[in-house]
Amino acid sequence: MVITFLSDFGLQDDFVGTCHGVIKTIAPETEIIDITHGVPPQQVLQGALVLSNTLPYMPAGVHLAVVDPGVGSHRRPLALRTADGRFLVGPDNGLLLPAADTLGGVEEAHELANPEYALDSVSRTFHGRDLFSPAAAHLSLGVQIGELGPPIDPQALVRIDVPRPELGQNRIRANVLYVDHFGNMQLNLKRHHLEEVGVLPGVTVELELALERFYAVAARTFADARAGDIILYEDSYGNIAIAISGGSAAALFGSDASDEVRIHLRTP
Amino acid sequence: MVITFLSDFGLQDDFVGTCHGVIKTIAPETEIIDITHGVPPQQVLQGALVLSNTLPYMPAGVHLAVVDPGVGSHRRPLALRTADGRFLVGPDNGLLLPAADTLGGVEEAHELANPEYALDSVSRTFHGRDLFSPAAAHLSLGVQIGELGPPIDPQALVRIDVPRPELGQNRIRANVLYVDHFGNMQLNLKRHHLEEVGVLPGVTVELELALERFYAVAARTFADARAGDIILYEDSYGNIAIAISGGSAAALFGSDASDEVRIHLRTP
Amino acid sequence: MVITFLSDFGLQDDFVGTCHGVIKTIAPETEIIDITHGVPPQQVLQGALVLSNTLPYMPAGVHLAVVDPGVGSHRRPLALRTADGRFLVGPDNGLLLPAADTLGGVEEAHELANPEYALDSVSRTFHGRDLFSPAAAHLSLGVQIGELGPPIDPQALVRIDVPRPELGQNRIRANVLYVDHFGNMQLNLKRHHLEEVGVLPGVTVELELALERFYAVAARTFADARAGDIILYEDSYGNIAIAISGGSAAALFGSDASDEVRIHLRTP
Repeated sequence: MVITFLSDFGLQDDFVGTCHGVIKTIAPETEIIDITHGVPPQQVLQGALVLSNTLPYMPAGVHLAVVDPGVGSHRRPLALRTADGRFLVGPDNGLLLPAADTLGGVEEAHELANPEYALDSVSRTFHGRDLFSPAAAHLSLGVQIGELGPPIDPQALVRIDVPRPELGQNRIRANVLYVDHFGNMQLNLKRHHLEEVGVLPGVTVELELALERFYAVAARTFADARAGDIILYEDSYGNIAIAISGGSAAALFGSDASDEVRIHLRTP
Repeated sequence: MVITFLSDFGLQDDFVGTCHGVIKTIAPETEIIDITHGVPPQQVLQGALVLSNTLPYMPAGVHLAVVDPGVGSHRRPLALRTADGRFLVGPDNGLLLPAADTLGGVEEAHELANPEYALDSVSRTFHGRDLFSPAAAHLSLGVQIGELGPPIDPQALVRIDVPRPELGQNRIRANVLYVDHFGNMQLNLKRHHLEEVGVLPGVTVELELALERFYAVAARTFADARAGDIILYEDSYGNIAIAISGGSAAALFGSDASDEVRIHLRTP
Repeated sequence: MVITFLSDFGLQDDFVGTCHGVIKTIAPETEIIDITHGVPPQQVLQGALVLSNTLPYMPAGVHLAVVDPGVGSHRRPLALRTADGRFLVGPDNGLLLPAADTLGGVEEAHELANPEYALDSVSRTFHGRDLFSPAAAHLSLGVQIGELGPPIDPQALVRIDVPRPELGQNRIRANVLYVDHFGNMQLNLKRHHLEEVGVLPGVTVELELALERFYAVAARTFADARAGDIILYEDSYGNIAIAISGGSAAALFGSDASDEVRIHLRTP
């Protein structure tokens, strides 16, 4: 069974490679797909959103995710089984639940408490290596989830709030969820939000960010815009994003995740 | 059959991991070799050069490449078969052709138009995931290239120009093609260009970059130079490059891809 | 047999991918685990420490490591066999020896000199591709280490010095060995060094870095500290490190590898 792996470890250090080593030592035949290790450090919400966006594109298997600012505290280490038979492994801080919801919800949750399925020595700061990778490796070999530790009521798992947009008569207040490598800024908006206030492809709006205002046009794709145009488009995961055709929106706006964006409709 | 994968996606986001997930869902036994995902964003020429340099070192298979500023426009998505029996998959923007030429030229070209070999829903902005990865995965499983869509005349494929150096009596005008992680600056020059104007190992020349002049010495290897020396050397792909022994040439010169470099011979 | 791979190549360029291609062309069934390619460019000491820290977590196999500022000079290319039957491949510049010591010491050392186990053409600047990757691939297929070239006396191998801390009555002088992605600063100190001078969990000390002084508290884990506290903790490889709970110590201190740190005990 394949293991997918998402974290905020970055690729500069050996964190990711060491987890691969631990998994392949326990389960030499298991393949690992790295979803990304570029989640901004300790940003649980952004990790949760990326995991939830991407798992539908992954083969069913064990889905390991580690964004874990509470390592060494009392936050619980978890393994979950979803309604469609996948396994998720990671900390009990909300990281796993949006993805689990996408996969039909949590059927079964267990705390990782059985030392047989952890490394011999568990450090206080690197549970990715010592606890989560071994648990994922053993699950990939067919170990029953109930072997890993005592059950937890799925209702008792920690949840995080995804910020919701505010829709007014002529404006929307939204937040930047994620800024990607190309400088495109993903918002907590879906196409239906834009449609509800009348922003259809071709409509020009005003964006307010960091006390400045810019014109932007709703577009279906980059190819609808001229170079340098600011556009609002539906990205490949169905979120509305801000981009500049041929450039980096994040660089222009000096913007980052969690910034607020206001979209003003121009009255006709 | 192995798939190699090159793109400008970077590794911060999930783009690469999601393409891996799509490929492994369709073709669980296919192995993927990541050539690089660090091509500068949307720089088709640099992507084409890296692909062409590296494919001779890769196992024969399906060679997926995505640097695609025209995604969502009318540029065609392609699969090519080369004279030596390899497959290339990517956009029709010139990215694939220098590599195909290296591999004996294009025997057969097809537009990716058959929805059976794409994801169910094809976004306007992420053809790497929705169109190119599925096509590469199906080719790796033995699907015939003619199944993917209608043939295209190889003469009608989009080509890009690789800038050529100008050789004068006592000088060469060249361009920086690529700056690597160590700050070495690859030029559009081969050793024979230097030899034609008499620059052999040991000869000192003047480099002119960004209105400044520097002495540099033609060297066979870093070990021929003292720390801090600026050298011109033949890099591991047979291109002439500028380096500083023990340092970063790009940092010293503040230089970047596409900058012009003049090489002046010192008259004896 | 698995190959693990560590280098300072970074992931921006094709260096790592090209080595993968070379290995998989020679040994299609061999799996590669990338430990990290983010060792700071040409920092042999840091590469050696990371290799030594991580190999105990890797499956036994061939351990390829390339941090090679002397490429093209007379430094020898090596293959080693350790007392516990693993193979190490890389340059003779000290990179491999701390890891070999961790694995029981070097039993056998050979210079890579047999052109049958290198690429046909060996460049002067990229032995990772042309020499080390092919040697590792052939070893993974079962080629005897003695086939690769003539034996070398293990005592004649180049060693690097790991800087040692100085322990005084009320102070310790240490060095930063490594700064990770989270900004945690690993020192050349073990827990027993702190204990020798009486720094136990809960004790507050003064850190002196770059002419400035800061209070820090010895802690077992991040969870013992309040957000913003500077802590000294034992990291997951058993080294003492400086961190800021919820922040980046390296960013605060403007610090980098090899900087000196003084730890002053507060007299009661």
